[in-house]
Amino acid sequence: MAETAATAAETVVKTAVKTAVETVPATRSLRREDLHVAVHDPAAASMNFLNEVAARFPDAVSLAAGRPYDGFYTAQDIDRFLAVYRDHLTGRGLTPAQVDRTLLQYGRTNGVIGGLIARMLAADEGVEVPADAVMVTAGCQEAMVIALRGLCAGPDDVVLAVEPCYVGFTGAARILGVDVVSVPEAAGGLDPEAVLRVAHEVRASGRRARALYVVPNFANPSGVSMPVPVRRRLLDAAREADLLILEDDPYGLFGLDDEPRPALKALDTDHRVIYLGSFAKSVFPGARVGFLVADQPVVDASGRRTLLADELSTVKSMLTVNTSPIAQAVVGGMLIDSGCSLRAANRGKAEHYRGNLRTLLAALAREFGDDPRITWNAPEGGFFAVLNVPFEADEALLEVSAREYGVLWTPMRYFYAADGGERAIRLSCSVLDPDQVEEGVARLGKFVRDRVS
Amino acid sequence: MAETAATAAETVVKTAVKTAVETVPATRSLRREDLHVAVHDPAAASMNFLNEVAARFPDAVSLAAGRPYDGFYTAQDIDRFLAVYRDHLTGRGLTPAQVDRTLLQYGRTNGVIGGLIARMLAADEGVEVPADAVMVTAGCQEAMVIALRGLCAGPDDVVLAVEPCYVGFTGAARILGVDVVSVPEAAGGLDPEAVLRVAHEVRASGRRARALYVVPNFANPSGVSMPVPVRRRLLDAAREADLLILEDDPYGLFGLDDEPRPALKALDTDHRVIYLGSFAKSVFPGARVGFLVADQPVVDASGRRTLLADELSTVKSMLTVNTSPIAQAVVGGMLIDSGCSLRAANRGKAEHYRGNLRTLLAALAREFGDDPRITWNAPEGGFFAVLNVPFEADEALLEVSAREYGVLWTPMRYFYAADGGERAIRLSCSVLDPDQVEEGVARLGKFVRDRVS
Repeated sequence: MAETAATAAETVVKTAVKTAVETVPATRSLRREDLHVAVHDPAAASMNFLNEVAARFPDAVSLAAGRPYDGFYTAQDIDRFLAVYRDHLTGRGLTPAQVDRTLLQYGRTNGVIGGLIARMLAADEGVEVPADAVMVTAGCQEAMVIALRGLCAGPDDVVLAVEPCYVGFTGAARILGVDVVSVPEAAGGLDPEAVLRVAHEVRASGRRARALYVVPNFANPSGVSMPVPVRRRLLDAAREADLLILEDDPYGLFGLDDEPRPALKALDTDHRVIYLGSFAKSVFPGARVGFLVADQPVVDASGRRTLLADELSTVKSMLTVNTSPIAQAVVGGMLIDSGCSLRAANRGKAEHYRGNLRTLLAALAREFGDDPRITWNAPEGGFFAVLNVPFEADEALLEVSAREYGVLWTPMRYFYAADGGERAIRLSCSVLDPDQVEEGVARLGKFVRDRVS
Repeated sequence: MAETAATAAETVVKTAVKTAVETVPATRSLRREDLHVAVHDPAAASMNFLNEVAARFPDAVSLAAGRPYDGFYTAQDIDRFLAVYRDHLTGRGLTPAQVDRTLLQYGRTNGVIGGLIARMLAADEGVEVPADAVMVTAGCQEAMVIALRGLCAGPDDVVLAVEPCYVGFTGAARILGVDVVSVPEAAGGLDPEAVLRVAHEVRASGRRARALYVVPNFANPSGVSMPVPVRRRLLDAAREADLLILEDDPYGLFGLDDEPRPALKALDTDHRVIYLGSFAKSVFPGARVGFLVADQPVVDASGRRTLLADELSTVKSMLTVNTSPIAQAVVGGMLIDSGCSLRAANRGKAEHYRGNLRTLLAALAREFGDDPRITWNAPEGGFFAVLNVPFEADEALLEVSAREYGVLWTPMRYFYAADGGERAIRLSCSVLDPDQVEEGVARLGKFVRDRVS
């Protein structure tokens, strides 16, 4: 009796469950394949894999993480920079109510620290642009999205990018449905003739190449820099192919030496270059403040002239309205505090990163100097170097490396759209201390030697 | 001889100028028509016109500006909220280095205050969602862009929007090339049957309607709210038409009474609603922090289940990486400070806005109560009301109103994609004091009477 009752109750429950499952419309779950391709971004999947491996092996030394070193600021610096910026506004004659409004209200779409950024660009880079040509963005990532959106008007408008390419750029293009056409980088760096050739192919296919994305200083991921004559030739090539250049320079302050490397924008006499700036490495990532410089004249059908930065402000307003003036104030305070020279403010950071990169390159020579099958490049600065190995450095091997050797790295494969990078590894040394770099390369040495012997 | 020399010199100068003009490549100026359609956004052009008129007539009373009132916070509150949030992290056991890293480094893509926001939604709205379903965004504008990008996979995926529609939403869709199909709002508000009818038309045309955008409480621009039975019927209609609902609720705290108006998300038993949140009115716009709640289950081809918020994080990472943790900390501190209840923290603000709206409605009755040709609606809260007039309230008349009568307003025309709103005016009372509202309506009365008498 008791058993029968239990069985009956069970039957009722099962029926109820069955009915519930049957009556739940299939639409209660969204199908992942119905979502936009940006959701399936292969770069994001790669980064997720990296993060997941890093989380599973927390004791592994990360030669994969490319974020800045943690030790340069504390949270109290936020308060200090905010106070400096408020005093700056007061010193310019703003009333307390106007200072409050500047920080708390909606503000100018293109931001309020464009003047300070223009002063910084003049002092540090020899780039002379009006403050109105500067748009402050929610990090450099948004600057890429805004520039791409403004320039690429239809499905036939494409953008060129040096390959291997920073995944943030290809991801930005994917969000907007803009095709990226790769310009392969040779071992010695970008060849401007290759840009002309690819631009010609694009035009022959009936499409319009609007711009070329390039990181001239210590690129992510390759670490490669462009010699000055190549920069000049690239500007000529851009003119010949009627291309704009999207110049991204997050690492320029961190050369191994103090040799000046002129920005493309500093050599640009023809408004060819849109300069993309980041404060993630020169101040800190948490501000999420970047900028773009777009001093290109734009002319409409009636002959009215504006600056491209003005035109792009509509795009900015529909993406994020404006960049948080609180975050702008933090960066603005830092700029004022340093006399508008990031080079001056970043001397200590530059020393740290130089030390790490020298340590990395010396350790690579120690580990692999005797083996001609293993080569690496010698970046002149920045956070990254590339190690070429005689085997496929894929995700399965990365997991082996993490688990059995305690060292993480990034497959260069991640930075290629089609083939490429299979036998190469990106090494980063930004977030570590020199002894961790030593230890990481020692572990990497064992991992690589076990594969090739 | 002197004259000849002058003429020769002039000739040389003219030749030089001519040569310079001829040798400047045409490409030095970009053509505005070659830029993306988002640059030409008609809403942006309208807002520019409004701003420009406001700048030319600074003494005009603005019944056009919809931004929040300035007097609720000072810049010192930023420091206070930051300190509260830092103490909160310390209280949760984070070391000083971990607190620094939380505020200064790159962080979790979907943000760090999702748990506080989930607590606020439970306390204020009866919306129970896991913290992981919350994504913190660079203002609600970015939340719209992210939701639209994730859901609309191809050119046949469209979104429905109640018309008249907030221009930020149509602008976000334009950036992404997503078509917006209007669902006309009747005088009494949205009719869910109209949603079904439009969704059916979209399907019949071979396209797929992915979602409906709606502001259920005191909408911008119409001021209209949805009665509770209509909300329930709308959720049923969304299920029938296999639509998601994008619920935007920036004004819900500011009802004329304390009558609870359940969010669609609070009534949603079927994961139909993506809730879009803003702190611009409940905290302040300068934080530029908003959020979305996307607790929809997503299933991939292998049967793996995730939350939509997780899937959308890829889109977020390629737009702005993550929302400034400094800005998040300001809002997080405010939430902690208020026991995670914006309703509690906003009682004073709600009183201000109620007083202004009551003043506006009373003043309209005083000015226009005797004239049956002039009507207006009676919003139950929020920042906006609509005045219907027996003439076309266009930009030319707005300029007359500003110059000759000293009062600004917004043509309702701006909020329609095709025809609509020609003889209607949006009135806003958020940024003013009650006496300014009185004065503004008095001036508006004179302007309108001069047109109709």
